[in-house]
Amino acid sequence: MSVLSLLRESLGALVATDAASLEEARADRSGHAATGRPLAVVHAERVEHVQQVMRIATATRTPVVVRGAGTGLAGAANAGTGEIVLSLRRMTAIHEIRPDDLLAVVEPGILNADLNTELADHGLWWPPDPASRDISTVGGNIATGAGGLLCAKYGVVRDAVLGVDLVLADGRLLHLGHRSVKGVTGLDLTALVVGSEGTLGVVVGATLKLRRLVPGETCTVTATFPGVRAAAAASAAVTAAGVQPAIMELMDAASLAAVHALLDLPAPTPGAAQLTIQTDGPAARSEADAIAAILQAHDGVTVVSHDREEGERLLAIRRSMHPAMASLGTTLIEDVSVPRSAMPAMFDEIARIEREYGIPIPTVAHAGDGNLHPNFVFEGTETPPHVWAAADELFRAAIRLGGTLTGEHGIGVLKRRWLADELGDDQWQLQRQIAAVFDPLGILNPGKVFSPDA
Amino acid sequence: MSVLSLLRESLGALVATDAASLEEARADRSGHAATGRPLAVVHAERVEHVQQVMRIATATRTPVVVRGAGTGLAGAANAGTGEIVLSLRRMTAIHEIRPDDLLAVVEPGILNADLNTELADHGLWWPPDPASRDISTVGGNIATGAGGLLCAKYGVVRDAVLGVDLVLADGRLLHLGHRSVKGVTGLDLTALVVGSEGTLGVVVGATLKLRRLVPGETCTVTATFPGVRAAAAASAAVTAAGVQPAIMELMDAASLAAVHALLDLPAPTPGAAQLTIQTDGPAARSEADAIAAILQAHDGVTVVSHDREEGERLLAIRRSMHPAMASLGTTLIEDVSVPRSAMPAMFDEIARIEREYGIPIPTVAHAGDGNLHPNFVFEGTETPPHVWAAADELFRAAIRLGGTLTGEHGIGVLKRRWLADELGDDQWQLQRQIAAVFDPLGILNPGKVFSPDA
Repeated sequence: MSVLSLLRESLGALVATDAASLEEARADRSGHAATGRPLAVVHAERVEHVQQVMRIATATRTPVVVRGAGTGLAGAANAGTGEIVLSLRRMTAIHEIRPDDLLAVVEPGILNADLNTELADHGLWWPPDPASRDISTVGGNIATGAGGLLCAKYGVVRDAVLGVDLVLADGRLLHLGHRSVKGVTGLDLTALVVGSEGTLGVVVGATLKLRRLVPGETCTVTATFPGVRAAAAASAAVTAAGVQPAIMELMDAASLAAVHALLDLPAPTPGAAQLTIQTDGPAARSEADAIAAILQAHDGVTVVSHDREEGERLLAIRRSMHPAMASLGTTLIEDVSVPRSAMPAMFDEIARIEREYGIPIPTVAHAGDGNLHPNFVFEGTETPPHVWAAADELFRAAIRLGGTLTGEHGIGVLKRRWLADELGDDQWQLQRQIAAVFDPLGILNPGKVFSPDA
Repeated sequence: MSVLSLLRESLGALVATDAASLEEARADRSGHAATGRPLAVVHAERVEHVQQVMRIATATRTPVVVRGAGTGLAGAANAGTGEIVLSLRRMTAIHEIRPDDLLAVVEPGILNADLNTELADHGLWWPPDPASRDISTVGGNIATGAGGLLCAKYGVVRDAVLGVDLVLADGRLLHLGHRSVKGVTGLDLTALVVGSEGTLGVVVGATLKLRRLVPGETCTVTATFPGVRAAAAASAAVTAAGVQPAIMELMDAASLAAVHALLDLPAPTPGAAQLTIQTDGPAARSEADAIAAILQAHDGVTVVSHDREEGERLLAIRRSMHPAMASLGTTLIEDVSVPRSAMPAMFDEIARIEREYGIPIPTVAHAGDGNLHPNFVFEGTETPPHVWAAADELFRAAIRLGGTLTGEHGIGVLKRRWLADELGDDQWQLQRQIAAVFDPLGILNPGKVFSPDA
């Protein structure tokens, strides 16, 4: 019996093979698409459905690509010829919300924003805050080890997950991690699964570590600088001074111009770069004042707002960056991350690469944690060779500065060719061997992350 | 040539075989000792020494037990017949302290307390705060995934390590992790190494995530309750109310009595249990007041102090628990951890086990995170069967309540026989296979954690 027949026999109407479903599963928000069309999209609604798919996949040696909302930016969930797409988007249940234990137990398909709407009724929130929070799933956040705007103060996804339920390649279900704050029984497989991009198993449930909603006001400081290097130096000075913003976002001149055009706002001063900083918690106001003083000392034209809605309006400019870039063409969004003190030097490297390759590289940064998103915009669906060459320079510069290829988007297909450069061959081989323990047949997201050929 | 000759030829005076050195390496602070004496203790002073030892061990298939200060409580660093002890206690260098990037790069043998003394000059600290902080090493903290008193507010060791340098069983050196806040290149092997108890490799360096020293005053709230269950319910109420103490420690009547006797303090009220709570940061005073109100509402006799030294004096009572127990006999310190709402129920279980087995189980708890340390005290060096039977009941109760065998001490030899009960056979086998990827010959701390026989 064919794989498709086996899936249909076992899962019936959950199996979609219409052209639109198959086509949609080829690409993510990176704009890049897999070669060919997948075999089918299975819309799992329960853990058992996931197990059934994996048993069939194991029996027939068929590759499986797990998919949430498809908002990834590294091509990690793109599915091509002969692959089964296992969509978890319908698994959206919240099984438990425990204000007394500060945890929630959820299914992977729920959107961050929807979860946080529910949690807010209990005075709680789950901190991971990627720019895609309104459209990305908790499971996708876990699979990529997502970051976002709040990480310097409130941590990354790894810090916000206590346990995961994982279906293995052969269909067995494991419960990893704990419901308690502490727990050191054996190896920390929960942390290993976070950021593993669908290569170790299928996350079918998660026990999330929650926080109380932060009481008090939120203050927003914006500052405009004559150029991006001055803005980067000012943001590094904020970190070095010991104040802890909740959010510290940097936009260069090209990014600002693109977003202002998209939102029909008046054009910004040519060449000017901007920092948008938020403080929260009991010391919000004094921290905002301290930050404003630092920015002014760095020649930033600085405005402080104590109005939460005004703050959201100011941040909406930053959150519109990805649509603004997408409106200009196909975008390769890079994601290098460097120690915070190295941010000015990283912007120097970007300026150098812009000059050498004769292309603009509009860049925004989560300046509070040193994570930069340089954008390459081009026509068509294939990244041109000179863009890859410029990106290659970018990666090498980040690694030279003590940084990394990817702070929060992951490796997927778009960065697999550089993974061994950063890890070194010994570690790269070790990681592959660990993945093979979970997936001895190599059916989980093959060609992604650890694929040697690019 | 014998293993010892190879070690001496390669490492000369770093190799100790005197009776005192060998005897000391047989035991940790659990009071339990390995069978027989190890072959030698190698006092590594540089990474190359560690690599030399591992190459010899691999070539000769000799087991290696890595050791820091020997303050562990699960027997994980106890070395017996035929084993090489690889001591990292002399590797105490601090290579970098970076206030601008909030990180430090250190060698594993430095004591937490010594590191924090150095960091304080830069206005920084490394949060892991086990009760042993004055005598335990950073490397030991990483190997066990240590916890301590501050975890609910400031996290566990896994949250405070950005990267580790790891020497593999065959002597190769890997650099795992990042210097940046974010980084998702491949699998998170740094997190996998944290808490791996010497089974995956030798941690020869660490990049630590630091915090700024918390400004402002520290407030201390103490409250006395008629019994331990009332104290546990009050502490759970503090967590459920949404205030976040830095420290929340609970001591039952037997613990209080033992510590008061050790410190020559007046005997406490019979049967009374105590909570000692500290708040810090900008809201320290208002949080202390809110906590005091909750404790009073739970019939606690409550005192608030705003004096930092008085607070340290009050906490010294809690920090004297281990010496107080040790003064009574050999101690088996258990380490179960449960969701915070389950703490009162866990104390009910402890009371039941005390009744059923006719033994006292003096218990302290890191009540802010649900981590309990029930103590069994006995004569001699071998844990008597009825104590193991009582401990077995304790573990099963903790797991039933959604908790875990060990919150922060690890599995070592003392809990290996229960590991598969908590993980399930499938996960236990998977963990063993992952360890075998790192250590295919099984020479790294054999008999610990994953050993099937107990």
